[in-house]
Amino acid sequence: MENFVFQNKTKIIFGRGTESSVGEETAAFAKKVLLHYGSGSVKKSGLYDRVTASLKKAGVEFVELGGAKPNPRLDLVKEGIELCRKHGIKFLLAIGGGSAIDSAKAMAVGVPYSGDVWDFYCGKAVPKEALDVGTVLTIPAAGSESSPSSVVTNADGGLKRGLTCELIRPVLSILNPELTFTLPAYQTACGAADIMAHIMERYFTTTKNADFTDRLCEATMKTIIHNVPECLRNPQNYDARAEVMWAGCVAHNDLLGTGRNQDWASHQIEHELSGMYDVAHGAGLAVIFPAWMKHVYKSNVNRFVQFASRVWNIEIDFHNQEKTALAGIAALESFFVSIGMPVRLKDMDIGDDKLEEMADKCTGRNGSVTVGGFVPLHHKDILEILKLAR
Amino acid sequence: MENFVFQNKTKIIFGRGTESSVGEETAAFAKKVLLHYGSGSVKKSGLYDRVTASLKKAGVEFVELGGAKPNPRLDLVKEGIELCRKHGIKFLLAIGGGSAIDSAKAMAVGVPYSGDVWDFYCGKAVPKEALDVGTVLTIPAAGSESSPSSVVTNADGGLKRGLTCELIRPVLSILNPELTFTLPAYQTACGAADIMAHIMERYFTTTKNADFTDRLCEATMKTIIHNVPECLRNPQNYDARAEVMWAGCVAHNDLLGTGRNQDWASHQIEHELSGMYDVAHGAGLAVIFPAWMKHVYKSNVNRFVQFASRVWNIEIDFHNQEKTALAGIAALESFFVSIGMPVRLKDMDIGDDKLEEMADKCTGRNGSVTVGGFVPLHHKDILEILKLAR
Repeated sequence: MENFVFQNKTKIIFGRGTESSVGEETAAFAKKVLLHYGSGSVKKSGLYDRVTASLKKAGVEFVELGGAKPNPRLDLVKEGIELCRKHGIKFLLAIGGGSAIDSAKAMAVGVPYSGDVWDFYCGKAVPKEALDVGTVLTIPAAGSESSPSSVVTNADGGLKRGLTCELIRPVLSILNPELTFTLPAYQTACGAADIMAHIMERYFTTTKNADFTDRLCEATMKTIIHNVPECLRNPQNYDARAEVMWAGCVAHNDLLGTGRNQDWASHQIEHELSGMYDVAHGAGLAVIFPAWMKHVYKSNVNRFVQFASRVWNIEIDFHNQEKTALAGIAALESFFVSIGMPVRLKDMDIGDDKLEEMADKCTGRNGSVTVGGFVPLHHKDILEILKLAR
Repeated sequence: MENFVFQNKTKIIFGRGTESSVGEETAAFAKKVLLHYGSGSVKKSGLYDRVTASLKKAGVEFVELGGAKPNPRLDLVKEGIELCRKHGIKFLLAIGGGSAIDSAKAMAVGVPYSGDVWDFYCGKAVPKEALDVGTVLTIPAAGSESSPSSVVTNADGGLKRGLTCELIRPVLSILNPELTFTLPAYQTACGAADIMAHIMERYFTTTKNADFTDRLCEATMKTIIHNVPECLRNPQNYDARAEVMWAGCVAHNDLLGTGRNQDWASHQIEHELSGMYDVAHGAGLAVIFPAWMKHVYKSNVNRFVQFASRVWNIEIDFHNQEKTALAGIAALESFFVSIGMPVRLKDMDIGDDKLEEMADKCTGRNGSVTVGGFVPLHHKDILEILKLAR
């Protein structure tokens, strides 16, 4: 096990009806907030009304900014930053999924910064301070409700880049599984793929002897595998929705990665994909992850056998462990298919004309950057993975 | 799943050599601390020297109070409170296991309180404020390094009572598995029994559909079962010690109990046992828990079958599920025996002359209080459990 520091400050308020506490909980931090949300569904579902009523009751003033979209856009972030500055706002309250939360986080570091907020995402600067962020989660997927990460897309160049820094970890997140009852099947499944990916990025490690976190990862994956199909069959099954929502949060709150190095190549490759094609992040991951596995499994067959055996209950073929490893990858792929995810680029109507360009973007201008911790991938590896994903 | 609030503020600094950061980390909170520790082992091992050197280097003054003992004593707590008041101290730094940490927590609430600190433990008052507590952990067992709980024994009447309150959750805990290399086998095993008990108190729930936390509990138990025997065989195996130390912390940081009701009857019964006989808490739990299981398993055979199957890999006898349930309980008992724990009162030279008195203490003066959430136990149940433990 490697040395680590673990601290997670987010106060999670979980369960039925919990959004009614948002006013009181927010008031402990600020009396004036920017309320940031996405499309009309928040209004249509009545959530907007309940949240604003709770804020008013607690005496919390708010300024609004809607319009957050999947693969959150830099221009909207900049609009939010200006609004906060204009109104002297010190707290961002995001209602929605990862997109609304990630753009609120970007605003949180952008407001007190005199330069361009994109500096933090392209690695030109490191945030020194940030406003507090709170969330009311409506989509279990990104884990952004308790993570120190934010991903933003710069339309100029189709670049999707991430920022990870403790300052942007939400101070408060309200998780009511009832709010996910109306999630369309496709979004539920995209969320599941994203959650699985967050766990697998940590699971595929070169750190030996990370037994406890291995088992925690396996427990969390099994929870997703067991409960997501039930969410699709019975979208209003509270218990199944609750398992997925809580597991999705823990999947990305850093606990599962403690003491181990991690991979994150599939996420990086997928960022180029959804940066260029605007596909759903989870769907992109469902396509990239199995291809990544097929490309790297030979570097550590044992780990893939463990994945097959412990996560998918596949009986180990002791005469042919490689076969077992491949059966685990096939089981993951079948799971994605069974919940309605694409598993090939062509399933998303993406041809192979830009594979080279995506590999270029991943590995930098001169192809010098390697990607991923489990197996460091070069330009040719990424191209190979994208070809396996066709 | 039940509604819950989860927040854990403790900053965990985990790994080799991490105690050298204690000065710098503590200085972020206070420039003057009470250094509280137990017996001579902290000095003998050189840990005391390393911690005090780090404090001095960071410009942190300290006043010392040694002498913390298993089943921490109220009189020592009071001595610490007076010392803090006399020296104007606002931060307690505990070096040791649960005893040193629990008594530091008691001091933390006692210092700003004008009444008797025991009020908080016997339920006469609720803490309104507390000093900050930091820890350097040397024994993976109590989980106190990241929990909101403290247990103290009042010699007057042999009463052992607990306090749970967010204010006393440590702000900072340093966990270096190397510090556990010299733990005697018996203490290692007592710690393992305590950790298993913390998980099982949460695992045996009447909440249906707590799938995720079930799986997290099972993952954590399996980590203990797999790694503790290795710690006993090779006390200097860093990886095995690390797994146990991190699992022991997570076992009691409240994550595994989220969204489910819990039991805690075995802990309460054991508190009477160790309050009266001064046996090691973990050893007492190894005796009480299997007896409790034998008394209650019929109320929910399925849960005990899950325990047998998922935790102990026992093949389910579908013709006789009760047999499977009992095999799980027997497996736990065998595990305790294999690591050198007592599993009967007589193994600890405790006769049956005070069983009635222990049951009396558990259930209050007139036997009106029930104990435990899985099956509410009355006086006669507790007596029966104690008899099963003979």
